[in-house]
Amino acid sequence: MTWERWLAEQAEARESSALTRVLRPRAADDATIDLAGNDYLGLARDPRVVAGAVSAARQWGGGAGASRLVTGSLGLHADLERELAAYLGQPAALVFSTGYHANLGVVAALADRDTLVVSDAHVHASLIDAVRLSRADVAVVPHDDVDAVRRALASAGDRRTMVLVESVYSVLGDAASLVELAAVCEESSALLVVDEAHGLGLHGPGLVASSGLAGLPHVLVTATLSKALGSQGGAVLGPQAVVDHLVNRARPFIFDTGLAPASAGAALAALRVLVSSPDLPVLVQQRIRDLAASLGVEPSVGAVLSVPMPSPTVALAAQAAALAQGVRVGCFRPPSVPDGVSRLRITVNAGLSEDDWSRAVAVLVAVVKEHAP
Amino acid sequence: MTWERWLAEQAEARESSALTRVLRPRAADDATIDLAGNDYLGLARDPRVVAGAVSAARQWGGGAGASRLVTGSLGLHADLERELAAYLGQPAALVFSTGYHANLGVVAALADRDTLVVSDAHVHASLIDAVRLSRADVAVVPHDDVDAVRRALASAGDRRTMVLVESVYSVLGDAASLVELAAVCEESSALLVVDEAHGLGLHGPGLVASSGLAGLPHVLVTATLSKALGSQGGAVLGPQAVVDHLVNRARPFIFDTGLAPASAGAALAALRVLVSSPDLPVLVQQRIRDLAASLGVEPSVGAVLSVPMPSPTVALAAQAAALAQGVRVGCFRPPSVPDGVSRLRITVNAGLSEDDWSRAVAVLVAVVKEHAP
Ligand SMILES: Cc1ncc(COP(=O)(O)O)c(C=O)c1O
Ligand SMILES: Cc1ncc(COP(=O)(O)O)c(C=O)c1O
Repeated sequence: MTWERWLAEQAEARESSALTRVLRPRAADDATIDLAGNDYLGLARDPRVVAGAVSAARQWGGGAGASRLVTGSLGLHADLERELAAYLGQPAALVFSTGYHANLGVVAALADRDTLVVSDAHVHASLIDAVRLSRADVAVVPHDDVDAVRRALASAGDRRTMVLVESVYSVLGDAASLVELAAVCEESSALLVVDEAHGLGLHGPGLVASSGLAGLPHVLVTATLSKALGSQGGAVLGPQAVVDHLVNRARPFIFDTGLAPASAGAALAALRVLVSSPDLPVLVQQRIRDLAASLGVEPSVGAVLSVPMPSPTVALAAQAAALAQGVRVGCFRPPSVPDGVSRLRITVNAGLSEDDWSRAVAVLVAVVKEHAP
Repeated sequence: MTWERWLAEQAEARESSALTRVLRPRAADDATIDLAGNDYLGLARDPRVVAGAVSAARQWGGGAGASRLVTGSLGLHADLERELAAYLGQPAALVFSTGYHANLGVVAALADRDTLVVSDAHVHASLIDAVRLSRADVAVVPHDDVDAVRRALASAGDRRTMVLVESVYSVLGDAASLVELAAVCEESSALLVVDEAHGLGLHGPGLVASSGLAGLPHVLVTATLSKALGSQGGAVLGPQAVVDHLVNRARPFIFDTGLAPASAGAALAALRVLVSSPDLPVLVQQRIRDLAASLGVEPSVGAVLSVPMPSPTVALAAQAAALAQGVRVGCFRPPSVPDGVSRLRITVNAGLSEDDWSRAVAVLVAVVKEHAP
């Protein structure tokens, strides 16, 4: 088949299932209330975070200029790594240029054909891709099923084993049974890799730390700097021996330009705000509980409220209705939902004024009532 | 085997082959002359580029806040995409958060089990990983061997076919036979994907453009914003139908936070400098020729001069000797060299003053004479 023909067929298939995605760039002064993004603490536009980006760009330039292994490692990266590790209670950290890179890097550098990877059915695309890159065998287990994890690990024979979970799952906003998982992994000498993309910041240093698991040698953390920290980038945190290994073996680290100074500077400034304002997550947690109660859905451990919709089309219509009233929410449809259920994805943001927040709640309650009664 | 034991064995294996890599963060005011990075035109610290980063961070915040498909698409991204496409002579562009993501995205979204990917033996790690993600069959052909590409394509049967090359190869700095490759691909209805990471900027709009291939529907370009453009990020350029497909199917685009505003702003500013100063690449090209002549190596189409060294140990010693005299160059050793030969990797930078440049040339000539006579 020719490429032209194939592309046209793919486009038709999308169209006919109403699944075409298009980009809608927003304006800098967009007045819409944003309950779709992941800037959970409103730090992306915090003047201290912006100042961190600005001063880093002035001091270090627009880009890192090279791979971290050549001349692209900046003192700024080292500061960020030290302070991130300290905040999360981990011995060491390694900063990557995206959270996606961090996940690809850690899994593919540690797992190989002699490894069995046990992966929760709801993990993020970056972890799924990571397993594919690693060439390890993978056992996908039902969502947050600790017994299934135990059974899968027991089948590993003498292979090394690794378990992949998220502390707060990105689409449904539910939490992993971290303590139980860590115990099962310890029994089986397995490595537990916990993606804290949606836990860090929202729960201060994250759920690994608040569960008392930070610093255990068999529990690794990956994080993104692009959600609660309001910037871009990712990190892997854990034992120094793991970081040393990644520096030598993680291809998306070695063969990639270092994180841009402005992004490292913004993330570091956001981290310092978190450290100095331990109460920062309280407001967003309060808002999550309030909105969940108003919508009659489960409150989320994360800032993500997931509201099931009867179909992809209705989900889109509900999203459009909210937008028409000035509130932007996310809409997840297959294939980017783990369970095939279309849903509104509402993320709560501590950066909104009380007025905007109340208005948003009123709009969403009405829209959900109308579309998914 | 336990993870602890495995990590220790891996570390010992690195140590015993003298291949351990460590990070050496540099200071912002580091006085060392940098001939190792990829900031070929010296734009990363250009005041216009820094101003682009600063004003974007002020206007848009520290991060894009979400996936480009949710609320992470900024007007700034759209501007960058439009101006990049115009500069490279392409119908459309899509910006990714790294060049690595761009390569993973385009290959894995277009190629599948029904595709044969023909890959030059020297392509970058990101393209190799991309093929693995795609699950396509791959034929790795000898470096820049157009006949081998033709033969591989002829064996594809009725699968779709894609050929992966770089316009200027990253390690050796040599150029691909683009015109011949494009002709062979056209004959076989194959898609040619050209990574312009080291061609863009150094050759103005890149070698695809200067070879008269820009805008051909079967020639796609990938680019990074992190080398000559002095920032971070990547892009895929080609027909609108390809961009539309990527928006819907490229996982490292869909499931990733949009490029940070400061990085998009820096890249856009750098691009505008390039557009308004078409002579900018002349100085760096002159320096490449001069240094190659002084060192007695082949001049490079790229800004990369590759000086073979007798062994990894001697390569490291030569690198250290240059550094002791204030000149930082790269050192590539297995496994990050395509042909197993350790080498100094010297990258020429138009940002250096004439004085620094002359000093660097003198140091390098002496060091190379001593270590690889
Ligand atoms: C759970 C999870 N992990 C990783 C990522 C990737 O992080 P980044 O956007 O920083 O690449 C995301 C989202 O983007 C995510 O939701
Ligand atoms: C040929 C080539 N392609 C892609 C990349 C990846 O680009 P980036 O560093 O922007 O991720 C690089 C180097 O980093 C490269 O040399």
